[in-house]
Amino acid sequence: MALDQVLATIDKNLDRSIERLFSLLRIESVSTDPAFAKNCRAAAEWLAKELASLGLDASVRDTEGHPMVVAHSKTQGAGPHVLFYGHYDVQPADPVALWETPAFEPQVKTVGGRKIIVGRGSADDKGQLMTFVEALRAFVEAEGKSPLRVTIMLEGEEETGSPSLAPFLEANKSELKADVALVCDTDMWNDTTPAITTMLRGLLLEEVIVKAADRDLHSGLFGGAAINPIRLLGRIIASIHDPEGRIAIPGFYDGAGELDAEIKAQWTSLDFSESKFLGEIGLSQPAGEKGRHVLEQLWSRPTCDVNGIIGGYTGIGSKTVIPAQASAKFSFRLVGRQNAEAIRDAFRDFVRKQLPPDCKAEFLSHGASPALQLPLDSPYLKKARAALAAEWGVPAVLKGSGGSIPIVGNFKRDLGMDSLLIGFGVDDDRIHSPNEKYNVSSFHKGARSWARLLDALRS
Amino acid sequence: MALDQVLATIDKNLDRSIERLFSLLRIESVSTDPAFAKNCRAAAEWLAKELASLGLDASVRDTEGHPMVVAHSKTQGAGPHVLFYGHYDVQPADPVALWETPAFEPQVKTVGGRKIIVGRGSADDKGQLMTFVEALRAFVEAEGKSPLRVTIMLEGEEETGSPSLAPFLEANKSELKADVALVCDTDMWNDTTPAITTMLRGLLLEEVIVKAADRDLHSGLFGGAAINPIRLLGRIIASIHDPEGRIAIPGFYDGAGELDAEIKAQWTSLDFSESKFLGEIGLSQPAGEKGRHVLEQLWSRPTCDVNGIIGGYTGIGSKTVIPAQASAKFSFRLVGRQNAEAIRDAFRDFVRKQLPPDCKAEFLSHGASPALQLPLDSPYLKKARAALAAEWGVPAVLKGSGGSIPIVGNFKRDLGMDSLLIGFGVDDDRIHSPNEKYNVSSFHKGARSWARLLDALRS
Repeated sequence: MALDQVLATIDKNLDRSIERLFSLLRIESVSTDPAFAKNCRAAAEWLAKELASLGLDASVRDTEGHPMVVAHSKTQGAGPHVLFYGHYDVQPADPVALWETPAFEPQVKTVGGRKIIVGRGSADDKGQLMTFVEALRAFVEAEGKSPLRVTIMLEGEEETGSPSLAPFLEANKSELKADVALVCDTDMWNDTTPAITTMLRGLLLEEVIVKAADRDLHSGLFGGAAINPIRLLGRIIASIHDPEGRIAIPGFYDGAGELDAEIKAQWTSLDFSESKFLGEIGLSQPAGEKGRHVLEQLWSRPTCDVNGIIGGYTGIGSKTVIPAQASAKFSFRLVGRQNAEAIRDAFRDFVRKQLPPDCKAEFLSHGASPALQLPLDSPYLKKARAALAAEWGVPAVLKGSGGSIPIVGNFKRDLGMDSLLIGFGVDDDRIHSPNEKYNVSSFHKGARSWARLLDALRS
Repeated sequence: MALDQVLATIDKNLDRSIERLFSLLRIESVSTDPAFAKNCRAAAEWLAKELASLGLDASVRDTEGHPMVVAHSKTQGAGPHVLFYGHYDVQPADPVALWETPAFEPQVKTVGGRKIIVGRGSADDKGQLMTFVEALRAFVEAEGKSPLRVTIMLEGEEETGSPSLAPFLEANKSELKADVALVCDTDMWNDTTPAITTMLRGLLLEEVIVKAADRDLHSGLFGGAAINPIRLLGRIIASIHDPEGRIAIPGFYDGAGELDAEIKAQWTSLDFSESKFLGEIGLSQPAGEKGRHVLEQLWSRPTCDVNGIIGGYTGIGSKTVIPAQASAKFSFRLVGRQNAEAIRDAFRDFVRKQLPPDCKAEFLSHGASPALQLPLDSPYLKKARAALAAEWGVPAVLKGSGGSIPIVGNFKRDLGMDSLLIGFGVDDDRIHSPNEKYNVSSFHKGARSWARLLDALRS
């Protein structure tokens, strides 16, 4: 069987694959520090050369910042056109003194029975992106070509907020548009259980400024008669959640839906310790909707948080002022088919209804993006689940992500593509920290996972 | 009758009294600007000389800042020993361009049928303090001496928060302690209705810092599970007042008492326009306890205000953070015999009871002072009411003051003296503003009022 040959090639080449990854890891492509700009370019050029050697049309493309690497397979193939995304830039090594071996001198070590690759970027994201490159290499070596039409896009600004990404997508829409995106920058559930992130919460950002008297007032001369906008804002904040932790804004849950029973059963059965998760941040009790599992609260339930509040005197000591205004920044995490614009309107109405005659509210919008959800019946998802289950021997966890992953929004919005978020990182990879590592098993079985998925997609 | 002679002397001397006031007004004793330090001293020296000319032992006493003027009558007299307080320092003239005549070139003008003295300090407080000096002068002229044992203390730092006052009182306790203080820095009810301020609200200042997780959290990764301290603080703020505007902290109203029926009737019958009062600050509805007259809300009812709040991200735009903490500054205005320390404890308990297990609160105290209230049956108050009613032909309004007047607290706390707050300013005196003025009738009848009171006190 063709797949077996490809997998055998991956196995046989593992040491050389690791050597190639080491070459990339040695390039200090720190995007956050302009002093490393030439190293970033060097990493881009190294990758373009590597991809060209696999028979792809590969190029380094300039942007306002660090360059993009774009490569196209010459194969058309029977299956879908896939766009693979990764990033070659890394975080600085600081604090350098805490690294046990130098950040940019990668090594394989055995720690607690696990073989690991240690070095900056080993997990985030050079090790991850190379799982895909090595899978592709195995196809080329075993079969002479890419199994599908593949486009690879690797950016060099992920650690600085991807400023060039959206303009690049916009300028190269027709070149980059594929049937589905493969994004390799996420984690497995644990060392031996793969995961696919299929739900990403959306985000609505609103700021409210409550205004009362036309000037700051002396609280002695006016206190007791003049309305205090901080008190009103406190009342508004207090009114947003009911005693069950549900959000009381009318219509807020429209379209939020309920978690699929299969996924709910999976999440409930995971070896997830609520007390460990909360304990790590100094908390002990989930504060969200009552009767919901913490993973549900984080991944599949909408929220409202106040991210900032300010009003009156906030310096040292005291000042007896009744301020003319007070303001708060609210963020709503959205799920399912919740309509961000409708919720914005409902929130504003909800606030306005609480304003006494002498107060008014001004609203500032800081953005709105809907939740993203890969349907359970997506054929890509089905094939990915099968491929991962075959490789790892256990079903993939279908995870949510409480926060947004901007690239996925860009792909959906700008290129009309769903994304399969599959990655092989694990919790203790220490990304962004000293002694970043990547499991050798993640690297090896990651490549095998991609081989299985690419094989499944073409059939 | 002796008093008639004294009053006739005041009447006869009016023009010369105004001339003397002008001499004082011409001295630019601006305390807020160090460039005018020598002018402040000049004003102090002018006053000491003036008081010495009336037969008092008068001296200019150095402090860390501007000097004090202290003068003692040689008369022992039959009545109580009174301490008169005023201040000779003034606000800067700025904005100078808005003065119709120069700030330090006082003039008598007739505007809208009213004779007024225009100039910086005419009302605040040189004009006011000179009413007492002129009354004393009339006694000396008519009878050869002060009618009572009188101590006069005039400070030069009132407009800068009186930094030297408390140390000066502390250092000169036995010299300054009298039976009752006369403080002339307040207003009448209107041009023709005198007032005595008999109630001063106390003040309790508390800051609360609510802490939750041990670090700032990403609201995507933790939102829905992690408790948000801003939300909790909002809930605490919202819980302080009940729907009737009453404060829900247990025991808060202990000792607050109810307004004396006579005073309540007086306040209710005053020509006070709620809508005008609130309209001037852009409001239309009293926001305090329901069913209470606005003057009651301001003068004789306790309050709780939030003077400041801060937490999380407060810059431009948005940041999806769940902050580790949020804080608010609270002030309580106290009345009657409310116990500031007991209320502090009750407030802290009230906050602590609302803390979920994962949150804690820290408290900072920024001071506590009880309300001051002159008992209606005080013999000094009775004589003052009679004296003012005799002079003005209408009863004096017994006012409250929503804010504290620090000197009164100092006299009570440091010297164990009650204060009679009697002043002849009116609403439109424009103190601290361009074109400050003082009604000639205030100046003239103010001096006559003091003469009547001093006469009443000695008998």
